[in-house]
Amino acid sequence: MKYDRSFNFSAGPAMMPEPVLEEIAAEMLNYRGSGMCVMEMSHRDKAFEEIRDQAEADLRELMGIPDNYKVLFVQGGGTLQFAMVAANLMKNGVACYVETGSWSKKAISEAKKYGQVKVVASSADKNFSYIPDCSDLDIPDDADYVYICENETINGTTFFELPNTKGKILVSDQSSMFLSRPCDVSKYGLIWAGVQKNVGPAGMAVVIVREDLLRDDLDPKTPTYLSYKIHADNDSMYNTPNCWSIYCCGKVFRYLMDNGGLEGVAKRNEEKAAILYDYLDESKLFTAPVEKKDRSLMNVPFVTPTKEQDAAVVAATKAAGFDNLKGHKTVGGLRASIYNAMPKEGVQALVDFLRKYEAENA
Amino acid sequence: MKYDRSFNFSAGPAMMPEPVLEEIAAEMLNYRGSGMCVMEMSHRDKAFEEIRDQAEADLRELMGIPDNYKVLFVQGGGTLQFAMVAANLMKNGVACYVETGSWSKKAISEAKKYGQVKVVASSADKNFSYIPDCSDLDIPDDADYVYICENETINGTTFFELPNTKGKILVSDQSSMFLSRPCDVSKYGLIWAGVQKNVGPAGMAVVIVREDLLRDDLDPKTPTYLSYKIHADNDSMYNTPNCWSIYCCGKVFRYLMDNGGLEGVAKRNEEKAAILYDYLDESKLFTAPVEKKDRSLMNVPFVTPTKEQDAAVVAATKAAGFDNLKGHKTVGGLRASIYNAMPKEGVQALVDFLRKYEAENA
Repeated sequence: MKYDRSFNFSAGPAMMPEPVLEEIAAEMLNYRGSGMCVMEMSHRDKAFEEIRDQAEADLRELMGIPDNYKVLFVQGGGTLQFAMVAANLMKNGVACYVETGSWSKKAISEAKKYGQVKVVASSADKNFSYIPDCSDLDIPDDADYVYICENETINGTTFFELPNTKGKILVSDQSSMFLSRPCDVSKYGLIWAGVQKNVGPAGMAVVIVREDLLRDDLDPKTPTYLSYKIHADNDSMYNTPNCWSIYCCGKVFRYLMDNGGLEGVAKRNEEKAAILYDYLDESKLFTAPVEKKDRSLMNVPFVTPTKEQDAAVVAATKAAGFDNLKGHKTVGGLRASIYNAMPKEGVQALVDFLRKYEAENA
Repeated sequence: MKYDRSFNFSAGPAMMPEPVLEEIAAEMLNYRGSGMCVMEMSHRDKAFEEIRDQAEADLRELMGIPDNYKVLFVQGGGTLQFAMVAANLMKNGVACYVETGSWSKKAISEAKKYGQVKVVASSADKNFSYIPDCSDLDIPDDADYVYICENETINGTTFFELPNTKGKILVSDQSSMFLSRPCDVSKYGLIWAGVQKNVGPAGMAVVIVREDLLRDDLDPKTPTYLSYKIHADNDSMYNTPNCWSIYCCGKVFRYLMDNGGLEGVAKRNEEKAAILYDYLDESKLFTAPVEKKDRSLMNVPFVTPTKEQDAAVVAATKAAGFDNLKGHKTVGGLRASIYNAMPKEGVQALVDFLRKYEAENA
């Protein structure tokens, strides 16, 4: 890389494409002759409205989002989405959740404030190291939706097949896999994703929601900011949005379009993940605990036989210039997050380093 | 200015100091040898924690925030703060609000979801063109707090004297005047401010709250994200914050410290506002409708005798390179927002232009 930049394996916020950062830096003092930085623009300015509209249009094209879905840009991250999903969609007061790890557990906990939550499948029995069979879930007739965390960032699992929701709405948290592969949006009622893992700067979630799910008959005590319909009716400009994140994410959408779209990115992600998993599977020192069929292409947890060795490897990688390989505090071990913007060379360099480390410490 | 930049009179998001933007651009590809852009840093990274901690420390020094106050960085803007204030502070279910314009009205409307709201003073009778007398308000014994919008962005009024709250907690929305003048924080229970007007990029509010007001006995249905105590207990890192806004705002805090602190900025703001108000008061074409004693130093609304002339002046200023002088759609006319980062030369240039326009159109 041109700027002596780190290979940063952070689970999020995480790497962004270098050409995107160069463009942003170049536009900092005067965005395209506007005389302003995008941070200084009124969100009602024509120049900013064009940025917002283009970002949405590009995301729609990139993902093939059908016309009957709204795209929203909302602040508050996953923590607020856990509440917003339940506050907006739990009409009958009953929702089904699939429990696959840390983030689905948080979603479940928050949804319980709004009604009855039924955990219809769980992989808690094996420490969330797999995706449970969701082909024949016991879904109540009055369930409002079925909720999944499609990629568990901490546990390193991914749904490669969507649950059979038996006609109920599917809601998915795609935060740590958003735009990492093609997605048939029409299979979902609602997709949300914090952008700070695979797209752009933290402080915003993208919500893609089917129009007929937008309600104006929420519990009257629902805070205004939590209404999807209010955001939708105002093109995410009911209040001042995170304009900067919209601008940066828009550049990433365009970058992906110019680099093979989601098919292209999926191919690169598969190649990158294979380099790492192939090594881990042949290694005598490291183990990747997730069942092969359910392994995330984005977040790759792995362990040595002992906590002491885990810590020693983390320290060694850090000293060698590989950042943020420590596993999440709740599960320990190591984790390499290899999102879209992590170059293949970064993964290869890490594997080369780990292989050398293993040989030297055999 | 070096970069052919606009004099941007936007009410927010608005101008930022040029040296700050230059620093940000220079650090884009590799922040101080970290090998990362700040947008790419894990919020748990030591490098980012230092950015966050320094931003808070600098704000504390700049404002002289007492040790028994917490400083929070929260997403969701004013719309979410309207709800959070009421959800967290309305313990007895009774709150007093002073109604001085558009933003206090929005706060009142949201607070009604949480309990009984008593409007203890209002300037609605004269189209919100003054600050009502708040020296002897009729405050119920069980009132949880008295709320003001200390500077009404749309209406152009400011409290130069704080209400007599008769021992009750004072809560203030300082969004459009934050850091524009010295502030005795100890007089308040809670101050909040959306940063996008007078500090940095949109998508974050700063909340300064007295520790004893933090509660963990909120209504159990309160969304987790809305609890001030949870943000406080986690140093605003319960979930991923708007890291970029913290970083940019931190630079602005430091810039203000290096340029005379709040005393220095207040002096500059008084000079700038005097240039504009003095002209408006002598003008035969323009009128500044706000009572002199209550005029905002940040947002200066003014009108011509007719809507047609208002529109003609807006168009003429725009053509001359002065941006965003159109008044808010709810009140019409013109408005010049002259926040901290608007240079004196910008105000002088606008006045020179208006004076010339007036002479040519007499």
